Amino acid sequence: MKVIIIGGVAGGATAAARIRRLDEKAEIVILERSGFVSYANCGLPYYIGGVITDPEELTLQTPQGFWNRFRVDVRVRHEATAIDPAGKQVTVKNLETGEVTVEGYDKLLLAPGAAPTRPPLPGLDSPRLFSLRTVEDTFRIRSFVERNRPKTAVLAGGGFISLEMAENLAEMGVEVTILQRIPQLMNPLDYDMATFLHSHLRRKGMHLRLNTAVAGFRQEGETISALVEGGEAIPADLAILAIGVTPENALAKQAGLALGSRGGIVVNQRMETSVPDIYAVGDAVEIPHLVTGENTLISLAGPANKQGRVAADNICGGDSRYLGAQGSSVVKVCELTVAATGLNEKAAQAAGLSYEKIVLSPLSHAGYYPGGKLMTMKVLYEKGSQRLLGAQIVGHEGVDKRIDVLATAMQAGLPVTALKDLDLAYAPPYASAKDPVNLVGFMAENLEQGVVKQFHWEDVAGLPRDGSVTLLDARTPGEYSGGCAEGFVNVPLDELRDHLGEIAPGKPVYVMCQSGLRSYLACRILAQDGYDCYNFSGGYRFYESVLLDRWTRQNAYPCGVERP
Amino acid sequence: MKVIIIGGVAGGATAAARIRRLDEKAEIVILERSGFVSYANCGLPYYIGGVITDPEELTLQTPQGFWNRFRVDVRVRHEATAIDPAGKQVTVKNLETGEVTVEGYDKLLLAPGAAPTRPPLPGLDSPRLFSLRTVEDTFRIRSFVERNRPKTAVLAGGGFISLEMAENLAEMGVEVTILQRIPQLMNPLDYDMATFLHSHLRRKGMHLRLNTAVAGFRQEGETISALVEGGEAIPADLAILAIGVTPENALAKQAGLALGSRGGIVVNQRMETSVPDIYAVGDAVEIPHLVTGENTLISLAGPANKQGRVAADNICGGDSRYLGAQGSSVVKVCELTVAATGLNEKAAQAAGLSYEKIVLSPLSHAGYYPGGKLMTMKVLYEKGSQRLLGAQIVGHEGVDKRIDVLATAMQAGLPVTALKDLDLAYAPPYASAKDPVNLVGFMAENLEQGVVKQFHWEDVAGLPRDGSVTLLDARTPGEYSGGCAEGFVNVPLDELRDHLGEIAPGKPVYVMCQSGLRSYLACRILAQDGYDCYNFSGGYRFYESVLLDRWTRQNAYPCGVERP
Repeated sequence: MKVIIIGGVAGGATAAARIRRLDEKAEIVILERSGFVSYANCGLPYYIGGVITDPEELTLQTPQGFWNRFRVDVRVRHEATAIDPAGKQVTVKNLETGEVTVEGYDKLLLAPGAAPTRPPLPGLDSPRLFSLRTVEDTFRIRSFVERNRPKTAVLAGGGFISLEMAENLAEMGVEVTILQRIPQLMNPLDYDMATFLHSHLRRKGMHLRLNTAVAGFRQEGETISALVEGGEAIPADLAILAIGVTPENALAKQAGLALGSRGGIVVNQRMETSVPDIYAVGDAVEIPHLVTGENTLISLAGPANKQGRVAADNICGGDSRYLGAQGSSVVKVCELTVAATGLNEKAAQAAGLSYEKIVLSPLSHAGYYPGGKLMTMKVLYEKGSQRLLGAQIVGHEGVDKRIDVLATAMQAGLPVTALKDLDLAYAPPYASAKDPVNLVGFMAENLEQGVVKQFHWEDVAGLPRDGSVTLLDARTPGEYSGGCAEGFVNVPLDELRDHLGEIAPGKPVYVMCQSGLRSYLACRILAQDGYDCYNFSGGYRFYESVLLDRWTRQNAYPCGVERP
Repeated sequence: MKVIIIGGVAGGATAAARIRRLDEKAEIVILERSGFVSYANCGLPYYIGGVITDPEELTLQTPQGFWNRFRVDVRVRHEATAIDPAGKQVTVKNLETGEVTVEGYDKLLLAPGAAPTRPPLPGLDSPRLFSLRTVEDTFRIRSFVERNRPKTAVLAGGGFISLEMAENLAEMGVEVTILQRIPQLMNPLDYDMATFLHSHLRRKGMHLRLNTAVAGFRQEGETISALVEGGEAIPADLAILAIGVTPENALAKQAGLALGSRGGIVVNQRMETSVPDIYAVGDAVEIPHLVTGENTLISLAGPANKQGRVAADNICGGDSRYLGAQGSSVVKVCELTVAATGLNEKAAQAAGLSYEKIVLSPLSHAGYYPGGKLMTMKVLYEKGSQRLLGAQIVGHEGVDKRIDVLATAMQAGLPVTALKDLDLAYAPPYASAKDPVNLVGFMAENLEQGVVKQFHWEDVAGLPRDGSVTLLDARTPGEYSGGCAEGFVNVPLDELRDHLGEIAPGKPVYVMCQSGLRSYLACRILAQDGYDCYNFSGGYRFYESVLLDRWTRQNAYPCGVERP
């Protein structure tokens, strides 16, 4: 059996190694357009920033190493230019010599990945504008930075690569401006959760230009300017275009493979395309989203690796299935950890799901043990079924742990209330006896059993301030004086019982505190005294984060300085 | 409704707060024998070591604070001395005044906890011998340490409290000797996993006296000696007795409550005892082990807190259920993280379960991102059903995450092979694209599908060295020369294909490498060439750890120095 694999990074390299483990006799050829195979594409920004210092660390395997260990014939700088599915042949161009050959196959695996999206904008050919995909791109940016010592950089895009680049450039002392078309960074987050990231980056001195689409670039001398809609030009020494990725589907198209509505290659659970003996994996394929069941593009290394293994099994005559992904992701941005799994509110709404949301801000570990850090968690579940739909967490230590526990519970089909029963490992340096994940279960059970009702930050502006409802702030006077939501009257929780007589009977009561715990306790006191009572989800710290973000955004535009 | 709660720490305090949230009118009394309520019992060793510096951090709530917030009448230094279930009364002794009163109840909750086990040994009354349970014990040890500046300490016991005390004493410069009756520390681990902990502590300069039961203590002047069976006396400035805990069942016994075979109070899923209107939670009760279904004692804060909430719900007329625990635990010992969930081999054997085991040593995060640390993982699953039975991990960063993910998968009922499909969050600082938990799934699938067979360290000594089997070491010559298992011949993996002709046909081949990956690849090459082939589980690093531990133990005894 002869197998040709087009693309030798995550999915392709994994498949090659697995095929060899299953079939010592197969002839395996990897065609890789770039000069490197099996490289650590998620590590590239960290080489630019000097976190990873040895360029050899970026390449997990060399062609020679791959041959020695797996007898895989890796041909770097070789581009597949056409596929003939009927003749089972691939046309290959040697990018070093220009030589074109034709290579037959029994099985073909497409793992071409996704390319940085390049819309038809002016100035994309500027030598000071870079995209980041390959090891070559990395070396190019790194050598530009070493040679030119840029003081400023403008980054178009607010996703993983842009933010990892922003962090690495900022740590080298570069002043960073991030342009983002929509009002928030990091699409896996909802806007409210993203505000914690925004304020963190602003505190680090980054300039966020949200709601600002890039319209092109213009280089004049040693300055490249990002042009934004409206005519403004943002000058910098260096520009990065990282507004997203587009599946590489040109070969698949040419070969007549079925493509999905998002431009990705259509595959079944066996990672087979619409054409016999052609498989596809990785960023170029559309896979089922485990929560919605809809086909989607998920450009992440974890799914690509798993798909590569499944394709290899099937290429070797097995029957393995890839069921889909739920978009579990995490990213480090300037000491902040941002993680998500499943659907956020935007996605749940788009999927037409009826959901409830829970917001909390637990400590990463026991409060009495030093070093605990607050994290902000938001968990969505489906009304009625109590099915977990998704989670988002922004914080420091312990964020990656909780997102993985929630991802596991979600994928295993646990209802949200089952989270309260999870027997998680506790010791003061690692967690609390009631782990944040347990707390989500407790809170969901309270909501589901009607022990408490809640309201959200979107509701605050619309609450009547005409006396027809009571607005309470259950924090201490000191906390309250530092800032409160308009119209909310301070009655500290511990004094509430003594002031019940002063709260207008028969009117709904809306209660806020700092994180949502004391206001919940207040609601329980009030509800048992006959009040129709609502607890503010996430507390004032959540409300304030959204409010400050909006304020900063509105005030920052005229002068370009967004730091409050 | 009047509720009396006996014991105001984890389960009791949680229940009190929850009862108040559900019933604003209930009269709630907590009787707490010690002088403190709702204290952080898991934090006590860290106060002694100075990691927690403010004694107020140890008490999450004061009686006054509890009253202000929850209207709970906390009576510290009050001991319940008798229960009259028929008359629904508790006899209470005020330990300050000696006054004895009788208090009626509608509902009674027992949360008395477990006391440090004190077998009838000589010398337990020495003023230089301490146990650690309460805040008072903590202050006593702390003030002893401050006053006497001990240079040496001997700790009897090798569990959580002993090891946390050992860490905290060692960090203060105290030379620590740990006596443990059985051949290993940390019973939640199997012996082989514990050897990584042993060597770590020995490198830190601690003296481990394993297989050494304490027979008593003897104080002479300012020296206390631990007496061990055989007559040896181990002198120190300070001794700690922490050989385990025993459920506090005296009151329950007196009240005629049913006790289990392990001496714990029998409860149903509603946390009801055998006597109407008496509930019990925490370290004093027997609960079902989620894996075996057998009743067991689990002295951990997580289960106690969850039980307290369930009992409160039911006391207030609800219907909540506590289904059991699986013993998920984690402990920090001198920068090492030791974690476990479910059954280890000893427990699986005792439960009569037929299991398969997987050992691996993955990195905490992507190898190319700096700071990744090796961890050693062992996962057990049931043969046939593929049910996850338990996991143990020893390492550094990322250990607590993987144990919680495995605990969640286990509790959700995922079979071991489903671990390969888990969509976990990956970025270089947090994980690898194939997370260690995914790797367990891959390895289990390989075993289950017969892609590879394995052998274990227990099998190595019994392998014939008469030429009837072939023993291969697939590491590099450099690794091999640093130490190898007896009789294993070095054929580096990358040269194996060129030497296949030299391997005796028809004879079984046993292959070892450093971690188990290269030997797996070698097995695949050999198996496809017709050999009956076995991969060594865990690699030479696992084998070496066990071997060194045994060697150290045997050689250390004569001179008392255990560091190799």
